[in-house]
Amino acid sequence: MSSAHPMSRSRTTQTRLILPPDTNQYGSIFGGKILAYIDEIAAIACMKHTGKEVVTASFDSVDFVSPAYVGDMLELEAIITSTGRTSMEVYVRVLSRNVKTGEEKLTTESFVTMVAIDEEGKPTPVPAVYPETEEEEKLYKAGLERQKTRREKRKKLKEAIV
Amino acid sequence: MSSAHPMSRSRTTQTRLILPPDTNQYGSIFGGKILAYIDEIAAIACMKHTGKEVVTASFDSVDFVSPAYVGDMLELEAIITSTGRTSMEVYVRVLSRNVKTGEEKLTTESFVTMVAIDEEGKPTPVPAVYPETEEEEKLYKAGLERQKTRREKRKKLKEAIV
Amino acid sequence: MSSAHPMSRSRTTQTRLILPPDTNQYGSIFGGKILAYIDEIAAIACMKHTGKEVVTASFDSVDFVSPAYVGDMLELEAIITSTGRTSMEVYVRVLSRNVKTGEEKLTTESFVTMVAIDEEGKPTPVPAVYPETEEEEKLYKAGLERQKTRREKRKKLKEAIV
Amino acid sequence: MSSAHPMSRSRTTQTRLILPPDTNQYGSIFGGKILAYIDEIAAIACMKHTGKEVVTASFDSVDFVSPAYVGDMLELEAIITSTGRTSMEVYVRVLSRNVKTGEEKLTTESFVTMVAIDEEGKPTPVPAVYPETEEEEKLYKAGLERQKTRREKRKKLKEAIV
Amino acid sequence: MSSAHPMSRSRTTQTRLILPPDTNQYGSIFGGKILAYIDEIAAIACMKHTGKEVVTASFDSVDFVSPAYVGDMLELEAIITSTGRTSMEVYVRVLSRNVKTGEEKLTTESFVTMVAIDEEGKPTPVPAVYPETEEEEKLYKAGLERQKTRREKRKKLKEAIV
Amino acid sequence: MSSAHPMSRSRTTQTRLILPPDTNQYGSIFGGKILAYIDEIAAIACMKHTGKEVVTASFDSVDFVSPAYVGDMLELEAIITSTGRTSMEVYVRVLSRNVKTGEEKLTTESFVTMVAIDEEGKPTPVPAVYPETEEEEKLYKAGLERQKTRREKRKKLKEAIV
Ligand SMILES: CC(C)(COP(=O)(O)OP(=O)(O)OC[C@H]1O[C@@H](n2cnc3c(N)ncnc32)[C@H](O)[C@@H]1OP(=O)(O)O)[C@@H](O)C(=O)NCCC(=O)NCCS
Ligand SMILES: CC(C)(COP(=O)(O)OP(=O)(O)OC[C@H]1O[C@@H](n2cnc3c(N)ncnc32)[C@H](O)[C@@H]1OP(=O)(O)O)[C@@H](O)C(=O)NCCC(=O)NCCS
Ligand SMILES: CC(C)(COP(=O)(O)OP(=O)(O)OC[C@H]1O[C@@H](n2cnc3c(N)ncnc32)[C@H](O)[C@@H]1OP(=O)(O)O)[C@@H](O)C(=O)NCCC(=O)NCCS
Ligand SMILES: CC(C)(COP(=O)(O)OP(=O)(O)OC[C@H]1O[C@@H](n2cnc3c(N)ncnc32)[C@H](O)[C@@H]1OP(=O)(O)O)[C@@H](O)C(=O)NCCC(=O)NCCS
Repeated sequence: MSSAHPMSRSRTTQTRLILPPDTNQYGSIFGGKILAYIDEIAAIACMKHTGKEVVTASFDSVDFVSPAYVGDMLELEAIITSTGRTSMEVYVRVLSRNVKTGEEKLTTESFVTMVAIDEEGKPTPVPAVYPETEEEEKLYKAGLERQKTRREKRKKLKEAIV
Repeated sequence: MSSAHPMSRSRTTQTRLILPPDTNQYGSIFGGKILAYIDEIAAIACMKHTGKEVVTASFDSVDFVSPAYVGDMLELEAIITSTGRTSMEVYVRVLSRNVKTGEEKLTTESFVTMVAIDEEGKPTPVPAVYPETEEEEKLYKAGLERQKTRREKRKKLKEAIV
Repeated sequence: MSSAHPMSRSRTTQTRLILPPDTNQYGSIFGGKILAYIDEIAAIACMKHTGKEVVTASFDSVDFVSPAYVGDMLELEAIITSTGRTSMEVYVRVLSRNVKTGEEKLTTESFVTMVAIDEEGKPTPVPAVYPETEEEEKLYKAGLERQKTRREKRKKLKEAIV
Repeated sequence: MSSAHPMSRSRTTQTRLILPPDTNQYGSIFGGKILAYIDEIAAIACMKHTGKEVVTASFDSVDFVSPAYVGDMLELEAIITSTGRTSMEVYVRVLSRNVKTGEEKLTTESFVTMVAIDEEGKPTPVPAVYPETEEEEKLYKAGLERQKTRREKRKKLKEAIV
Repeated sequence: MSSAHPMSRSRTTQTRLILPPDTNQYGSIFGGKILAYIDEIAAIACMKHTGKEVVTASFDSVDFVSPAYVGDMLELEAIITSTGRTSMEVYVRVLSRNVKTGEEKLTTESFVTMVAIDEEGKPTPVPAVYPETEEEEKLYKAGLERQKTRREKRKKLKEAIV
Repeated sequence: MSSAHPMSRSRTTQTRLILPPDTNQYGSIFGGKILAYIDEIAAIACMKHTGKEVVTASFDSVDFVSPAYVGDMLELEAIITSTGRTSMEVYVRVLSRNVKTGEEKLTTESFVTMVAIDEEGKPTPVPAVYPETEEEEKLYKAGLERQKTRREKRKKLKEAIV
């Protein structure tokens, strides 16, 4: 698949309300719930980009910087930052917003790698992405770097196993 | 509350994936599920606008124009189109998108009226909205019309009861 | 399908308990949740009447007359009030009941139009309904009126589009 | 609480649709799901009778006589069949109905004992019930018998422990 | 299937956290929710033992000995205690544990009978179980007794129907 | 809190069945769902160790090594591997098991950092852990290493921000 799409084509946003079932008995949202939201929005971004089914290959390390509570809004945004042959790296940012005060805080940022699969569940090629704005350019370049690091890490792991 | 906010401040978008639990055994989404999504995004739009808790006062009639299936994406968009003293009219549009073909279809449009409430659950004043673009202008003017119609209908109903 | 069934055959009731996950953080049920319940019970009424799968074509406008809270019971009742060739109009009434005081209040009433579909998802004929009691007679006659209005509205819409 | 209510006051019905999330991967509903439905409807019947909060004390043995599948309707009916000082025995019957053929089959029957509790979670007296129809009379008499058996069983258990 | 497996092969444990959606508005877990958990873990134990799909045939009577609350942990343990030709008896014990005090209380014990089914949903033979420890020996012997009692009860029921 | 507990005290296991609502339309489980399970079991392990409420501070990078499907069993195991003043590192391993063939595959491994919090949501001291077996010893030593690396990373990050 030689074609390429602008990064913006994959941009996906989602505003959610934190409801009682998402929280512990002190009203604070579970980290696992947020990871599930991140996974869902990353998959949607990749499906927009590829028009194919995708599966999650990996999550880079995730820091939960500030808690979010029942009644807060959660603003999620996802964009593809780089691609391999069959894989895509997606950047996802999660902000929480207090409804009363309007105060917005970073909850977490995350890089997720998704792989496109065909009808038999086998990895299948994806279009490349290209940046159009300065901000996208930065994300794109850093994405290529991270991709290289991940590759080397995986290569070392494989050598260590042999 | 004499202040007013631009309509765009309330604009809220949400992309969702239709999953098996949202559908009947033929894989087509339930109308009631979509109405629940519409209610949620309309409430978020009003909370952004007012910084207050809101309750649903009414839904205008809703037509489900085309079905949506498991694996489709659902794109929801909400914006406040007019306000009263304590009530807000929100326009919500729902599109479904086929992941493989990219084909986008209107699922339904809806006008929801929400009322802001204070800590005791009593209606409480809301800021006005003003349009900034031509498209918003159209929605705003039509909103005032619908609001008038709804008021007259409610007034007649109350007189009929007495 | 020339046969006809009594309206009572489709009558369906459901008593539910409002639980924490159905409510916002102030313990009041979401309007969207109630609409989802209405959709489900209307579909069941139509499946009883037709023995076929059905989809939601439209909701008439819905007013939420009084709030309902965690721990309240919700009493839903649905009955088919008129039929077309492939469509059915269902009347759904929702009452809330306070467990402690026994006080019952109308939450909302709604008219839903459902369409029977065959295995390929195409509209398929439905049996007619006939009223047996005086109360059913009233609902039936009003139903025919509403149906006519809806048809004209849809016809005008289509002409407007052309 | 010296008053007594007719058994019919507690009668509660619920028609449900079996949806994909309630079933295993062969489309047959989980026994545990049905027990959860039975518990919910029995609690509602007791709340109608007492106007109080209730907790589940025990389930008599339950046989699942026939399976029920995705797309079937489930008809649940509950009625209080006898009372003690603070406890109530509820009879719950579950039928499944095939939408296409209309065929109805017994899924299971169950006797649940619920106890009314006050604000501190302590058992609190409940009104008695009295039968009004012949069918209710039968259920009522059998209920008294079962109650006696359960009491003796519990007494023996306590003696055995000492 | 003439082979036999040790009872320990089916042993299954599960620690769960009681979350708000599992509870009523006073924070105490629903009896029905616990029965659904028991059904799930019993099915898993039988699937480990047989490598086949299973359905729930019956629950012996269940007493809820002590309540469990939001924030408590629930410790479930299941083990097959005896087998027939196609059926298995599973013993399930549920303890609740207070996180702060560490106090552990028996919530309920239960004997569930599961039947292995083939692709057409027909009962299919299961391997036998044999005990290896003294504790298992006790459970095993008592299981054979209970099985006999259940068989006689079912036989009498069938005769009564004829 | 000067006391220390053996690592084994926190060991927590959970066997789950993958059900339709956990999966996409091809029957394969969502990565985000597994991360939510990991978060839950890690929290339980820490609550067992501390008797306190905990929040998720971070996830180390997670690779999804092999997919898991509807009908598979998921075996989760969590154990605390090292502690700081208020934080704990938990190792979580997830295996999937095919019911028919019994084949077991690693789905993913993960290191989660949880922080104990007091009633006001502030970090609060936790007991230390000590290994008792050789396998625990290995996990423990590697845990101290990882902890050091994470601290240095966080320190650098903070310096970079200043
Ligand atoms: C909506 C509600 C708060 C209105 O209360 P009320 O006593 O009628 O209050 P008011 O007469 O002061 O009306 C307040 C505003 O709501 C508007 N309103 C009331 N009912 C309405 C309806 N059915 N449709 C549209 N607007 C409505 C009024 O026009 C008024 O608007 P304004 O302040 O902009 O002029 C009340 O009906 C309610 O609590 N309903 C249930 C809401 C709910 O819980 N919904 C979720 C599921 S039940
Ligand atoms: C409802 C639907 C099947 C109608 O299809 P169609 O191509 O318009 O079919 P027809 O023109 O033959 O109409 C069939 C019947 O539906 C009625 N109908 C169609 N749209 C309707 C609407 N918005 N409101 C009320 N009735 C409607 C028609 O009047 C006709 O009734 P009749 O047979 O009794 O005379 C189609 O619009 C659809 O699939 N919508 C989505 C349904 C769905 O999936 N809902 C859930 C969530 S999206
Ligand atoms: C369980 C079921 C498969 C038994 O079918 P059946 O036609 O009675 O089959 P059989 O008479 O051959 O009995 C098969 C085994 O089940 C046992 N069994 C049947 N009903 C039982 C009951 N109520 N309690 C305990 N064991 C039971 C029999 O003793 C026999 O055991 P064995 O092979 O070890 O000797 C059938 O009743 C059924 O499908 N029930 C619904 C199961 C279900 O879907 N449950 C979930 C919710 S409804
Ligand atoms: C985790 C949290 C409580 C830390 O608060 P803080 O103000 O940074 O507190 P401190 O600096 O005193 O750190 C407390 C401990 O957490 C550790 N920690 C903080 N952030 C961490 C991270 N991202 N990864 C690993 N450990 C971290 C510190 O090293 C310290 O450990 P120690 O006491 O064992 O030495 C805070 O960041 C928070 O509330 N995050 C959100 C948690 C949450 O709600 N998660 C769920 C979904 S958002």
